Amino acid sequence: MKSRAAVAFEPGKALEIVEVDVQDPKAHEVMVKIDFTSVCHTDIYTLSGDDPSAKFPCILGHEATGTVYKVGPDVTDFSVGDKVVPLWKPECGQCEYCKKGLNFCSAIADTQGEGVMPDGTSRFSYQGETIYHFMGTSTFSEYTVLADISLAKIPEDAPQDKVALLGCGVTTGMGAVKNDAKFQPGSSAAVFGVGTLGLAAIQMLKRLDAKEIIAVDINDDKEAMAREAGATHFINSSKLDQPVQDYIIECTDGGVDYSFVCVGHVDTMNAGLEATHKGWGQSVIMGVAAGQEKISTRPFQLITGREWKGSSFGGVQGRSGLPKVIADYQAGKIDLEPFISHHLAFEDINEAIRLQEAGQSLRDILSFEEVNNA
Amino acid sequence: MKSRAAVAFEPGKALEIVEVDVQDPKAHEVMVKIDFTSVCHTDIYTLSGDDPSAKFPCILGHEATGTVYKVGPDVTDFSVGDKVVPLWKPECGQCEYCKKGLNFCSAIADTQGEGVMPDGTSRFSYQGETIYHFMGTSTFSEYTVLADISLAKIPEDAPQDKVALLGCGVTTGMGAVKNDAKFQPGSSAAVFGVGTLGLAAIQMLKRLDAKEIIAVDINDDKEAMAREAGATHFINSSKLDQPVQDYIIECTDGGVDYSFVCVGHVDTMNAGLEATHKGWGQSVIMGVAAGQEKISTRPFQLITGREWKGSSFGGVQGRSGLPKVIADYQAGKIDLEPFISHHLAFEDINEAIRLQEAGQSLRDILSFEEVNNA
Ligand SMILES: [Zn+2]
Ligand SMILES: [Zn+2]
Ligand SMILES: [Zn+2]
Ligand SMILES: [Zn+2]
Repeated sequence: MKSRAAVAFEPGKALEIVEVDVQDPKAHEVMVKIDFTSVCHTDIYTLSGDDPSAKFPCILGHEATGTVYKVGPDVTDFSVGDKVVPLWKPECGQCEYCKKGLNFCSAIADTQGEGVMPDGTSRFSYQGETIYHFMGTSTFSEYTVLADISLAKIPEDAPQDKVALLGCGVTTGMGAVKNDAKFQPGSSAAVFGVGTLGLAAIQMLKRLDAKEIIAVDINDDKEAMAREAGATHFINSSKLDQPVQDYIIECTDGGVDYSFVCVGHVDTMNAGLEATHKGWGQSVIMGVAAGQEKISTRPFQLITGREWKGSSFGGVQGRSGLPKVIADYQAGKIDLEPFISHHLAFEDINEAIRLQEAGQSLRDILSFEEVNNA
Repeated sequence: MKSRAAVAFEPGKALEIVEVDVQDPKAHEVMVKIDFTSVCHTDIYTLSGDDPSAKFPCILGHEATGTVYKVGPDVTDFSVGDKVVPLWKPECGQCEYCKKGLNFCSAIADTQGEGVMPDGTSRFSYQGETIYHFMGTSTFSEYTVLADISLAKIPEDAPQDKVALLGCGVTTGMGAVKNDAKFQPGSSAAVFGVGTLGLAAIQMLKRLDAKEIIAVDINDDKEAMAREAGATHFINSSKLDQPVQDYIIECTDGGVDYSFVCVGHVDTMNAGLEATHKGWGQSVIMGVAAGQEKISTRPFQLITGREWKGSSFGGVQGRSGLPKVIADYQAGKIDLEPFISHHLAFEDINEAIRLQEAGQSLRDILSFEEVNNA
């Protein structure tokens, strides 16, 4: 069938909205009609061409909500009409990661990385040419095909134009605090980078009664947003005349208990670790760094009791864990409004990318229906 | 009073055995007659001059057992005749670290680092010139003075010529596995560097029923020793035609669950982290690296679920925790024999250093009494 899609034909070029051909779902696959999608940093990063493993032409997109449109053979968990969130981290329930409760499911990792479905082929084409999938989701297409282990069912009454955001960034930032760091109430934390991840981390820190939440950014415009989410302090690190970690250590009498680094710069990741307290400091990195760049620190930093770890999708297993995150949202424990900068039509996707790159949007919700409040 | 001591007059020179003057213990200080001491890598490292913070002339030494010879005012926990192990990591019980159960006591950290007693002065002199303390212990003197928080009392019947080894290296290697990594029985591990720390780590891994213990060294002579302690595999990393982490990942189908790096080379520390399994791998570093060298890895290594941490004295709080380690030894759970290469007279200390640097000794027990089996 035909589908509107924003295709990344070449790295470094704008997306082109064209009508692609989408094949029917095969065994254990589901065709989903995407209702809302948003742009995440990883989409922009891949489009830039900086990720050498990216395959073009492809259909990007991995933060979305949709409705099951058609199910392939052997699909037992989904029916036409189900509301779903696509998962760029599938959950097969059978592999060694899934069994341990870790969200690194290996079931379809190889083919997902190659931009194809588990059988090794793509469901997308344009004028007879293969278009690759992306992150197993490709939500920048009105109709897309996913493995059935790459979908979480969500309640009928969950507002789809909001919970789309839980498909990546917000869940990552919140889960890093709650699941990966296992943040202890009453502790202090620094959050580096006040974007979607950082703001989500701050919101979760507040929810977990952090005694001190230090937001760090290089843009003063982020201060109001950070404070509104719960930050008790704001540091513009570009205005300091000393390394930000030294400054944090000074003004916290030894460093923060936890730090969360929500940007992809290795220098900031190093600062994040070094800003934590001797003896028990814990630093969690979340960003993807460019190319071969490495994080580095003196071994002394670890020997004296700091821990360095990472977080990917906030440690949440999609199929079993995401419904709980959505329940938290529906119970009022998560506020998604601050993350939504604009509501735009899907056709405005290149504008959404521009706004996000310019720091003028956290997330823009792109609708496949017409929107009035753009 | 007068005391035999091996003084490090200058970096890079042999120790000189001379008769130094030792002042009486002041408030909260204890004079200990050292019965047995051994040489640890940190003593050799400091003697080399590579540690810019070292102060000369000084009396090195921090692995030992002794007998309380005299107590200063206000000392309540010790009496003359008590058997003790000097602690280079004191435990005041009052500071924020001690209260959290962490062995980074800050009570006397500053003065200890400066080579003096808590009142800012030294108890040692030679021909009227100040001799500095080292690590708060200075066990290379027959009579030495320590803060009372720098001593653990040990049972009368604990063999002093053995448990001296529990004052640093052995406890560090074992504790890294048990306390810092919280090793889960049935898991796999790689141990980098088969010296005292590495062998101790291997012994503890065996005790905790590791399913696979891979010992890594650059010296084939270490294989027998490693296997005797419990290693199931031995890798001579200098003979591989690929990075040791890649080799380990290949032959373990994805990497080990834990790694313990017992050498002070940053490249080996990096390899240690990268040899662990995606999703749950944990690497613990123990060695001190020279100067400004840094550990480094791609952020991806942490984002995909690995944890990087360090261990110092095996996470053991000396006064409260070391007696339990000694009880384990007395109950037969720890075998100290494999660590003891020679019994030597204290006067042979330079020979002990030479043997250890040449890899011919793990530990030599130096006695202040005459020994026959040298
Ligand atoms: Zn799985
Ligand atoms: Zn994302
Ligand atoms: Zn203390
Ligand atoms: Zn030592």
